[in-house]
Amino acid sequence: MKLQAIILAAGAGTRMKSKLPKVLHRVCGQTMLQHVIDTCRQSGIEDSIVVVGHGAEEVKNSLDQGMKTVLQSQQLGTGHAVMMAHDLILEEGTVVVLNGDGPLITEETLGQLLAYHQEKGCSATVLTTELENPHGYGRIMRTTANGLDKIVEEKDATLEEKAVKEINSGLYCFDAKTLREALPKISNNNKQKEYYLTDALTIMKEMGKEVGVYKTPHYEDIMAVNSRVQLAEVEEIMRRRIAKKHMEQGVTIINPNHTYIEKTVVISPDTILYPGVILRGNTIIGEDCSIGADSRIENSTIGKGTTIHNSTILDSLVDEHTTIGPYAYLRPKSQIGKHVKIGDFVEVKNAIIGDYSKASHLAYIGDAEVGSHVNIGCGVVFVNYDGKNKHKTIVKDYAFIGSNANLIAPVTVEESGYVASGSTITKKVEQGALAVSRSRQENKEGWVKRKGLLKTKEE
Amino acid sequence: MKLQAIILAAGAGTRMKSKLPKVLHRVCGQTMLQHVIDTCRQSGIEDSIVVVGHGAEEVKNSLDQGMKTVLQSQQLGTGHAVMMAHDLILEEGTVVVLNGDGPLITEETLGQLLAYHQEKGCSATVLTTELENPHGYGRIMRTTANGLDKIVEEKDATLEEKAVKEINSGLYCFDAKTLREALPKISNNNKQKEYYLTDALTIMKEMGKEVGVYKTPHYEDIMAVNSRVQLAEVEEIMRRRIAKKHMEQGVTIINPNHTYIEKTVVISPDTILYPGVILRGNTIIGEDCSIGADSRIENSTIGKGTTIHNSTILDSLVDEHTTIGPYAYLRPKSQIGKHVKIGDFVEVKNAIIGDYSKASHLAYIGDAEVGSHVNIGCGVVFVNYDGKNKHKTIVKDYAFIGSNANLIAPVTVEESGYVASGSTITKKVEQGALAVSRSRQENKEGWVKRKGLLKTKEE
Amino acid sequence: MKLQAIILAAGAGTRMKSKLPKVLHRVCGQTMLQHVIDTCRQSGIEDSIVVVGHGAEEVKNSLDQGMKTVLQSQQLGTGHAVMMAHDLILEEGTVVVLNGDGPLITEETLGQLLAYHQEKGCSATVLTTELENPHGYGRIMRTTANGLDKIVEEKDATLEEKAVKEINSGLYCFDAKTLREALPKISNNNKQKEYYLTDALTIMKEMGKEVGVYKTPHYEDIMAVNSRVQLAEVEEIMRRRIAKKHMEQGVTIINPNHTYIEKTVVISPDTILYPGVILRGNTIIGEDCSIGADSRIENSTIGKGTTIHNSTILDSLVDEHTTIGPYAYLRPKSQIGKHVKIGDFVEVKNAIIGDYSKASHLAYIGDAEVGSHVNIGCGVVFVNYDGKNKHKTIVKDYAFIGSNANLIAPVTVEESGYVASGSTITKKVEQGALAVSRSRQENKEGWVKRKGLLKTKEE
Repeated sequence: MKLQAIILAAGAGTRMKSKLPKVLHRVCGQTMLQHVIDTCRQSGIEDSIVVVGHGAEEVKNSLDQGMKTVLQSQQLGTGHAVMMAHDLILEEGTVVVLNGDGPLITEETLGQLLAYHQEKGCSATVLTTELENPHGYGRIMRTTANGLDKIVEEKDATLEEKAVKEINSGLYCFDAKTLREALPKISNNNKQKEYYLTDALTIMKEMGKEVGVYKTPHYEDIMAVNSRVQLAEVEEIMRRRIAKKHMEQGVTIINPNHTYIEKTVVISPDTILYPGVILRGNTIIGEDCSIGADSRIENSTIGKGTTIHNSTILDSLVDEHTTIGPYAYLRPKSQIGKHVKIGDFVEVKNAIIGDYSKASHLAYIGDAEVGSHVNIGCGVVFVNYDGKNKHKTIVKDYAFIGSNANLIAPVTVEESGYVASGSTITKKVEQGALAVSRSRQENKEGWVKRKGLLKTKEE
Repeated sequence: MKLQAIILAAGAGTRMKSKLPKVLHRVCGQTMLQHVIDTCRQSGIEDSIVVVGHGAEEVKNSLDQGMKTVLQSQQLGTGHAVMMAHDLILEEGTVVVLNGDGPLITEETLGQLLAYHQEKGCSATVLTTELENPHGYGRIMRTTANGLDKIVEEKDATLEEKAVKEINSGLYCFDAKTLREALPKISNNNKQKEYYLTDALTIMKEMGKEVGVYKTPHYEDIMAVNSRVQLAEVEEIMRRRIAKKHMEQGVTIINPNHTYIEKTVVISPDTILYPGVILRGNTIIGEDCSIGADSRIENSTIGKGTTIHNSTILDSLVDEHTTIGPYAYLRPKSQIGKHVKIGDFVEVKNAIIGDYSKASHLAYIGDAEVGSHVNIGCGVVFVNYDGKNKHKTIVKDYAFIGSNANLIAPVTVEESGYVASGSTITKKVEQGALAVSRSRQENKEGWVKRKGLLKTKEE
Repeated sequence: MKLQAIILAAGAGTRMKSKLPKVLHRVCGQTMLQHVIDTCRQSGIEDSIVVVGHGAEEVKNSLDQGMKTVLQSQQLGTGHAVMMAHDLILEEGTVVVLNGDGPLITEETLGQLLAYHQEKGCSATVLTTELENPHGYGRIMRTTANGLDKIVEEKDATLEEKAVKEINSGLYCFDAKTLREALPKISNNNKQKEYYLTDALTIMKEMGKEVGVYKTPHYEDIMAVNSRVQLAEVEEIMRRRIAKKHMEQGVTIINPNHTYIEKTVVISPDTILYPGVILRGNTIIGEDCSIGADSRIENSTIGKGTTIHNSTILDSLVDEHTTIGPYAYLRPKSQIGKHVKIGDFVEVKNAIIGDYSKASHLAYIGDAEVGSHVNIGCGVVFVNYDGKNKHKTIVKDYAFIGSNANLIAPVTVEESGYVASGSTITKKVEQGALAVSRSRQENKEGWVKRKGLLKTKEE
């Protein structure tokens, strides 16, 4: 059975009060539209057509290359939107229509809808759910035979119909061929002058086709986002879902509602995430790690047994049994070895740091290769920029860089080379040598009093 | 119609277990009393009288200059509290009595109460609401004609009366003149020997006056704070309210229950607030900003398109398209230009920084004027304090300050002046000149081994 | 009346997906097992026997020295677990059986169960509660006389029995002597081939003993943890309980669900905890402190009136009216005096800092004694490590250490000694002397242009 998805993504989203097209607003780090596309893919639907309209260019640019899009230049209703895709609809197979502003639809629910649709042999199946407060939604009237009788919009509903709690999700499965036939028959002969996709259901029934109803108990799955308040609600649901998945796989999360994990992230068991942790993009965390409160890690790989305290790590690799932070900042292309310590107020950028090396505090290591067992003192700066170009520093194994030293790149400190505290190093330091550039200490006695700077205990 | 508010703020608040008078405890950054005063003002009530008692001086000091207060030196009941204000009550008009420990009352509810009161021509109107669990509150007995019959306190209520879920909020509207007449008639002829304001209602009814009831569906509005547990509950409600208001106006808030915005803050659309953000006082945030997790911004203005990561900004200005942090600290009177980068572990204080300048890491810029296109290297210190006085540093456009340099104020680096890494600068650097104060590097071969510091791979 | 507890802690906890034995997973910083042991102690039960099995050695190692344990090498049911303790059970007295994976049991509920048990003179009393959704739990069938009739497991329950909402908590009180008699009579003659402790109740009833039921309204108290999702739920409940206790004692907590206080922590009234604060271990916070957002404090004592902003403090003392942070890091054995300022990007380690001293920014003070009224400039490093050993620095009262200076330990700066900015100090600085090790500033005119580094405004 061939599968195809048509994703409606043309709406303006006026209530979002945004320059950004609605479907490009992000939930747990990803656009709403991308979530829907991803769920389709996971459900085995490789062929998706995105109907774009408002902000069409921006929406198209957000998509993976090769994604099919069709333009709905005027927004004349859901039926009209699907009509725009008419020529791309499969000859034979099943077409799912989804909403680009409904990012919570799951593979599970979509799979159940598809299974029901195929099993029952329906020409169309409506996904429905029950809401405590169905106000505003189209109500589902079932035939006695458990098929769809009709969908009644709020404004047209009698009191009795309003009491029905089963509502239309706006997600449908269609037999492709029947859909191609029905689409051109939808008219805009109504007050709003819109083409409604629900009319396709009526048309199919008139064609003598079976139109079924599949009701999911997961009402959250069909939530649509029309305002930033709803965006935050949907964000919380997805946040909790992602956290739950990781907890079920053996990750401890101290406060699941205050831990922000994008769905692309991989975490191994027996790792603990403390509150406020943000894990984004293609981040992979190994086993037995401790990710301290308020750490932000993006597109990085963390080896097993590593401890991170309140630090920011971007596009970097941190190997096993290493300690980072608190208050460390690993900028892109940092590659930190095993058993390393990158301590407080240390920035690393585009640098390799070998196993067992330490930069315990207040240092900047940029554009460098640092060997293993190296000690980078407090206040050390790898001076990589001369005002014009960036240069590289090499510090070899067992070297020791004294506090507040400057290493002016390009420069090399050979194995076991020592740099005295406070030195500015411009030339190579040979193996086992001490490099020092320092003036002799002079003490000027009585200077403080002479300068009137003497403070007494009585002050 | 003249309007006046009497705000009861004399209570001790024993259950708060605090040295601070109860009404001075803060909700979303502002005292509970101030919230009530502000809501009165927004509702068009300029003339407020605060009845102070416990901690009277402290409470008075917390108020804007010119606010009217009266002292209730002994707390003998709500009627007694209002009696203290008797001589200040309007000759003619409407008097609202509110509680200083009920900070959630809204302009909307207060306006509806006033409108109802005036429309119905009542001499007094009680604000009520319905509670699922009304235990402990005075119950509202209505007349058949929908006016107030009486208010029955919990301890005096029959079982039938206890079943009533409509309760007295403790907020009232009064016709000023009738209130002045009724007040002196309240007696303390009861078990508690207290003067109850509810007796004024009975007295008015005996005077043949109309006493009405206005029931609000917003039961949260009337919550009073008697303990720190309630303080936290009220804080959460107000926090969510403020967040909702901003979301409705086009601000994205990832976790509204973990974002702390004071009501004085202004935020433009399409700005994103990440979790843990704290925005206080007169802070104004422009459009399209990204305020990163755990940033704290107080009394500062942030221009459009600016990105802030996990930083602290106090009493400062940050202009458009600038990047701050992570882990930056802008202390008061920092004035950061457009397209500037203030990076990690950088402190700025009382300094102007021109457009396109950078201080990317580990630097302190204090008491300074920095031009545009300036590069402040890593570890640079603007040495503004000589142990006695603070002095100013001027760094002009296109200057370049090398890493770990000290600029000993007062000192000037002229346009395009360069300071070599590790230099301590005490004299002016002329335009286009390089200033260097550095010893020559000496390498002492074999020193590491001689000193017994050589470590081998086998260690 | 002698009291004894038997705590079942042998289970594997497969659903935790963990290498760690289930009872060693932590809730609010402490193992679940330790919480149960502590609650027993607080309830007057000094004599606890822990039944260990899965990960027996690890579990034993987690316990205080002297704790009694018995090994259940195969997990053959709760009755079997208690049998393992048979020889250690009191001759006479009351034995409470608890679950090591139920950390929420409180002193209050345990006390009520014991009181009920003793008052009613039962031989066994089952702790029960009512659940909205009792599915999966053993249901309590009471006799008409309000004793226990029987406990029916889910799988054996009729529809009528399933409708019962009172469930077995798995906590019991036993008369010690009767328990010793009944235990050997439990058989594994059932489908699962397990020994059930509930069978002991039936056996006692057959012995003509009274078996009672005590129902607690606090259903949370009996929650057991079988997965990390439940671990997070239990963590939230305990987090809120601890926060509530502190709020009731006069501590303001802005967001109780996002403040992480271990139960060992002591906080005095009128202290405010901002969101994201983490307080662990033996931490004691004085009165009138302000603990800023995202601060983490472990095993430290903070004096009254002290303000901490977004900092990390480990195993340290901070005295009264001192200011720490933002972004400060006090590592173990820091001892900070009164009215001190430890500012941004400052690390202190194993150092005493006297009253009124300041290290305002970007400094490292390690292995030191710093007097009072001392000023540690920006970028100052106490160089305590020579690559081999750590040495100590002494800075006496009223000394002034200029910016970016290095103090190479061991070294002393005497009273009112001054160190010039950028100096590296290797020898003692005498009282009132200025120490300087600095090269003269040289200005090389035209250098920037010659080097091709000149940037023009047109660029």
